Formats: sequence, C-alpha cells, structure tokens
Amino acid sequence: MVSLEDLKSLAIPAQTKIVLLVLDGLGGLPRPGDGWTELEAARTPNLDKLAAQGNLGLADPVAPGITPGSGPGHLGLFGYDPLQFRIGRGVLEAAGIDLEMTERDLAARGNFCSVDAAGLITDRRAGRISTETCARLAELLEKIRIPGVQLIVRPVREHRFVVLFRGDGLEEGLSETDPQQVGKAPHPVHAELPRAKPAADIANQFVAEAGRVLASEHPANMVLLRGFSKYPRLPKLTDIYGVRAAVIAVYPMYRGLAKLAGMQAVKTGDAVADEFATLESVYGDFDFFFVHVKRTDSAGEDGNFDRKVSIIEEADAQIPRLLALKPDVLVVTGDHSTPAAFKAHSWHPVPVLLFSKWCRPDGASRFTERECRTGGIGHVRAAELMPLVMAHAERLTKFGA
Amino acid sequence: MVSLEDLKSLAIPAQTKIVLLVLDGLGGLPRPGDGWTELEAARTPNLDKLAAQGNLGLADPVAPGITPGSGPGHLGLFGYDPLQFRIGRGVLEAAGIDLEMTERDLAARGNFCSVDAAGLITDRRAGRISTETCARLAELLEKIRIPGVQLIVRPVREHRFVVLFRGDGLEEGLSETDPQQVGKAPHPVHAELPRAKPAADIANQFVAEAGRVLASEHPANMVLLRGFSKYPRLPKLTDIYGVRAAVIAVYPMYRGLAKLAGMQAVKTGDAVADEFATLESVYGDFDFFFVHVKRTDSAGEDGNFDRKVSIIEEADAQIPRLLALKPDVLVVTGDHSTPAAFKAHSWHPVPVLLFSKWCRPDGASRFTERECRTGGIGHVRAAELMPLVMAHAERLTKFGA
Repeated sequence: MVSLEDLKSLAIPAQTKIVLLVLDGLGGLPRPGDGWTELEAARTPNLDKLAAQGNLGLADPVAPGITPGSGPGHLGLFGYDPLQFRIGRGVLEAAGIDLEMTERDLAARGNFCSVDAAGLITDRRAGRISTETCARLAELLEKIRIPGVQLIVRPVREHRFVVLFRGDGLEEGLSETDPQQVGKAPHPVHAELPRAKPAADIANQFVAEAGRVLASEHPANMVLLRGFSKYPRLPKLTDIYGVRAAVIAVYPMYRGLAKLAGMQAVKTGDAVADEFATLESVYGDFDFFFVHVKRTDSAGEDGNFDRKVSIIEEADAQIPRLLALKPDVLVVTGDHSTPAAFKAHSWHPVPVLLFSKWCRPDGASRFTERECRTGGIGHVRAAELMPLVMAHAERLTKFGA
Repeated sequence: MVSLEDLKSLAIPAQTKIVLLVLDGLGGLPRPGDGWTELEAARTPNLDKLAAQGNLGLADPVAPGITPGSGPGHLGLFGYDPLQFRIGRGVLEAAGIDLEMTERDLAARGNFCSVDAAGLITDRRAGRISTETCARLAELLEKIRIPGVQLIVRPVREHRFVVLFRGDGLEEGLSETDPQQVGKAPHPVHAELPRAKPAADIANQFVAEAGRVLASEHPANMVLLRGFSKYPRLPKLTDIYGVRAAVIAVYPMYRGLAKLAGMQAVKTGDAVADEFATLESVYGDFDFFFVHVKRTDSAGEDGNFDRKVSIIEEADAQIPRLLALKPDVLVVTGDHSTPAAFKAHSWHPVPVLLFSKWCRPDGASRFTERECRTGGIGHVRAAELMPLVMAHAERLTKFGA
C-alpha cells in the first residue's frame, strides 16, 4: 500500500469535486428462492447506468476474512489502513455522542455498576438506570478534581457513559477495571506499557473518587472503565490531499469518525432525501463529501432483506439529483457487508462503483456483487480506493520521473 | 510481494529464453463514438492469436491510482517494487544521455542560468543557450578540481546538463539550489540528512567554482543544481535470476534504466522493425530480452489516437518473426498507460499478455484492456509479473519442502 506520506507528496491542487456515498453494510448474500442478493433484488436503474459507464470492483474493508466494526470499515474507505491506524473503543464511544476531542485526550467507556458493602460487584449495569439518571451522575463525576487533568464525563445511554481525561502525557496501554462477572471487586487499572503509568495513576484516582462521590447513590454506586484509548493522530485528509472535506451523516458516530479524518460535520435531516438536500446546499463549500446512509445496515442487522432492498432503492432514486451537481468523481460503496441472511456485519467484500469521466468503462449491466467481481477496479483493499479516487479527480501528480 | 532475496534463492539455471516486449504507454481509454480503446481499435491478429493461447491480466505499475514516471514504470516490469527502489531525477537524467554511472556516483541535474552583478538570478535558463554552447561550458566545468572527487559534467540539451560527483561517502539527501524564481540568489546546498554533509560541502564548492569559471560568460554565468541522487543499488537481474539480459531500445533513458537492472545495451536502428532485427541478431547471446517500443507513448502524449493505433499494428506485424525465434516466454505489455484521450501518463492499469507453453490458456478472443480484466493473471502489481515470467521459463524451483 502506498504510504500516506507518499500520497501527500504527490497531491496537487485541483478544483474537482468528489462524493463518497456510503450505504452502510451494503454487501449482501443471496436469499432463498431466486438466489438474489439485496443489491440484485433492488431496482436501481440509476446506479446501473453508472455501472455501465464507470468501474466496478470488490473491496475488503480490512483484509480477506476480517469482519470490520464501523471504525475500521470507515477508516479504510477514508484511505487509512485499518491494521495500521486503530481507533480504541473509548474514542469511538466519544465520537458516537459527538463529543469533541483533542490530541491531549485519553478516552474510556464507562458503566455505572452496583457494588455491595464489601465492594464486590452485584450488577455490572446498575439495573440499567435511566439515561436521565446517567446524565445526573455524569455531572457529579465531572466535578471530581484531579491535579493536572481536566475531566469530561458525558452520558451515553442507560448505564453507559464516556470519560475523557484531558492532560499532558496521558498514554494508551491501560488494563480494564471490569472483571466481567459479579461477586468480584473492580480491578485496579494497571499500565501495560511503562509510558502509561501516569495515566493509570490518574484513572485509579478517578475510580476511587467516583466510589466516594457515588457512595450514597443506589443502585449506581460505582463505575467500571474499559477501552482506554488515545485520540488517534490520523493525518487529516486536508493535509494529505488538500481537500476541504465534509461529512453528511445522521448518526454521531459516523460524523465523529469523519472528524478524526479531518472532515467538517454538516447538519442534516434524518431522511435519505434530507442528506442529499444537505449535499446540494453545501456543495459549493467543500471538495470532498462523505455521505452516509445508515439504514441499509440496520435492516441487514435486523435480518430484514426487503427493508434493505427498499433503502437501496431509496438511495438509487437520489442519484439523479446527485449527478445534477456534476461531481468529478462519485464512489458508491459500503463500509462492510451486513447481509440480511447473516444479521450482522460480515467479512464479505463490499461492492464498489467508481464513476468519473476518466474511467475506462467496464460496460457492466448492473451494480451488483456479481458484476463487481469482474470489474476494472479488481479486488482490492478498501484503503486502496482513496488514491484511485484522487487520481480520477486529477489530484495526484506523477510518481517519479 | 516475494522479496528479491527469496527469488534469488529459488532461481535455477535453465536454457530458456524470455522476451519482454514493452509498448511504452500501451494502456488506453475509449474514443468517442465506438468507445474503443487504442488497443481495441488496432488490428492485431498476431497478438490476438497469442491471447487465445496465453494468459492475460491487468497490472498496476506502482499501485492503484498512482501514475508512474518512466523510471518506476520500468522498474516494476523488471521486478522491482517501485515504492521500495527509487530512482532520483539526477540519475534518470544521466541515464537519459547514456552516461555510464558507478555506485560511487552522486548525480544532479544542472541548468545554466544568468545572474546579475549582485548574484541574483535574472534568467533561470540562461536564455536557453544552444546545445553546442552547453557542451563547451560543460567541458569548462569538468575541469574544476575538488580534492577527493572526480567530476563528470555532460551536456543534455540547451541549458540543461548533468553532473556526476564521483567519490567515496557521497550520500543522498541534498536540497536544491534553484529558488524557482528570478530576483533571488541561488540557494546554498544543505544536507537534509547528517550523512549527506560531505556531499553538500562538495556540491557547494562546485557551485562556487562554477561561478568563477563562468564569470566572463554571457548569458550562462551561473549554474543551478537539482535532483541530487545516488546511483541506486539495484540487485541485478543476472544476480537474482542468473539470466544474461539485454536491452534493445532506441532512447538512451530506457537503456539507462535497463542497465541499472543489469542489462547489457545492444545497438539498434530506430524503426520498430530494426529493433526486431536486432533481437534476431543477438538472440543467441542472451537469455532475457527487453525490447522497448517508444512511439506508442509519444503518440498518446500527443493525443494522437490513430497514430498510437498504427504503432500498435506495426508492432503486431513483427510478432511472427519474434515467434520464429521460439522464445519460451513472451510478455507483451506497457510500462504504464498513456491514453490519447488523456495526453499524458495515467494511473490506469496496463494490459498484460503472457505467452508460454506452460500457460493455462484464457481462451480470450483478443488482446485488449477489456479481455485483460478477466484474464488468468488477474489484476496484479507490475513487479509481481517477473516471478511469473521466470516460473513459466522454468527458472524458479519449489519454495519450501
């Protein structure tokens, strides 16, 4: 894979515009009977027309056989090798509630839990307290004072919260406090790497203080911390390729992931059509647009083949208004497969459609997994798509003389 | 990618002969109207017959989306990963005038320029002096004496020249002296890496001396140096595979690139037919022949679709006399795409045809980008072709027991 440093050295300014349309969990599996995948069963006249004029391919989000979470799935599409750039769960959780992070932040996922008089856990989820209670307790925790560190504690949902430890020299490499069973005391945090020692000390101080602050609360009288992770130092798309990039996504986590890559979040309505209206309204302000459609994935997770088909068709119906903007490069793909038959994220490669006037057309008749298999892009890693996109946008100069 | 060390350990002696026929810039894009690429529009009955019996594929010269210069394009075909083995501009310029280099050489591209009494540049190209004047001034510069270093200074064309600093301990990592604008003084050379310090000192001595030597010349009274680069230590094809390799190419740069890989340059006439006549005449003397046809690329750069078609046809017409030599492996491909529609090198993958009695035939009807997309070689990196070639030539033994 070409390094981001090399890509940066090849990037040249251009006026071209790029749209990356991600139908979350797009890839599918055949249904019984006709053996069609969701994409095959969907009526997609607009995408099919693009398939005839553009290039198709299959992309492995991480590597063959690897089922990605949403983090690695999107990082790959943004051009980062997900095996090299890893996003911890604490950071992902913070991204998921639209919490602004800085490079000085160490994030952790928190649970409120119940402990008995001996400090042994009786309920790892504190009876799933309401989100309102969670918000009130998070405010209490945020008042904890630890010298040299600023604490940001925010509710997520029910018993779940996020804590950011903001300060200098706070490094990754911390063990979790959750013993994963009742009847045990929370583990102390220990540093798995020498450089993580200061952060471990601070996390332990926080847990001890939390126990005091919550002592009179019931059932949420203690906290468990997991997924300690540092804000990832991703080279931003702006720095690498010189593009002004925007994210149009309904769910905060996808906006959060895109912001890590240097994209600017744009406010949008919930419906698929709303997102395309947003694209139209900000089209003059950016060069690169990541448009995220979530519900294909949700339908796949629910095992609802027909609903996934209808959301694909809903997105297809928006393609003409997208093309009216005359993007120089349009990519339609998924961050991973979520076949309705599998009811979960899967490792299956993701169909990719790349459309630009510089394509050497495949002449495919449809945009389906089957046609993608013999497309001109070939079978690639998702992270290899971004250089291809930038090339078609005439944003990369010649390598070597 | 298999390392060159591994390949070397697998190489075994054989009597087989290999021809690598490179039609420079072969890959194309559709023309308006019938949507045919140059290769599709060309009448290539001989290549098509080979396509039916051999294997087709698509090769990315460097990686998807990366447009290669001629250096990386050819290095890939010779089996070197162009991302690992880099050839600097100074070395390429020296190769381009058939200048013999050694591993002790640090090469730079030079411009004669004009400076005023205060030493500020008034013309970065010294009014594009004649090549004859350039040759005379290069001789003057070559007389400069710097202790411990031999200077080789040769004219290229008009104001451009090459200088080789030949000596021990001269390392890469030097900044350029060209400020890229008039009204400024040439920059001093500085070492971007500590080990490049001795080379920087010598380059600065050279520039200072050049100013003295040229003081009375007009308009070429100063020099600018760029692209400082060390002769690359490429393992030679002879050492890796044990082949005696020859290059048949009209343009010196391609001969120079091939010599870096350990090939021996053979004198040839200019026409395509001349190159094949040369191949016939030296066929007994070598095992591996790199035959380079330049004008497909030139036609592409000129945007001349029809001329590119006719040069492809000219090459096709030579295939029978090539086959009469009974090579054990014949590869026909390009070092990159130069679509007439794009008028420049591009990132599009290059069609590859591999013909040998050991092919599992694709049964393709033609040698075109379209057929190559579904060929048995698949979609590979150009550097992956060489092991495949050597395998078909029965020059690689089993890996592992």
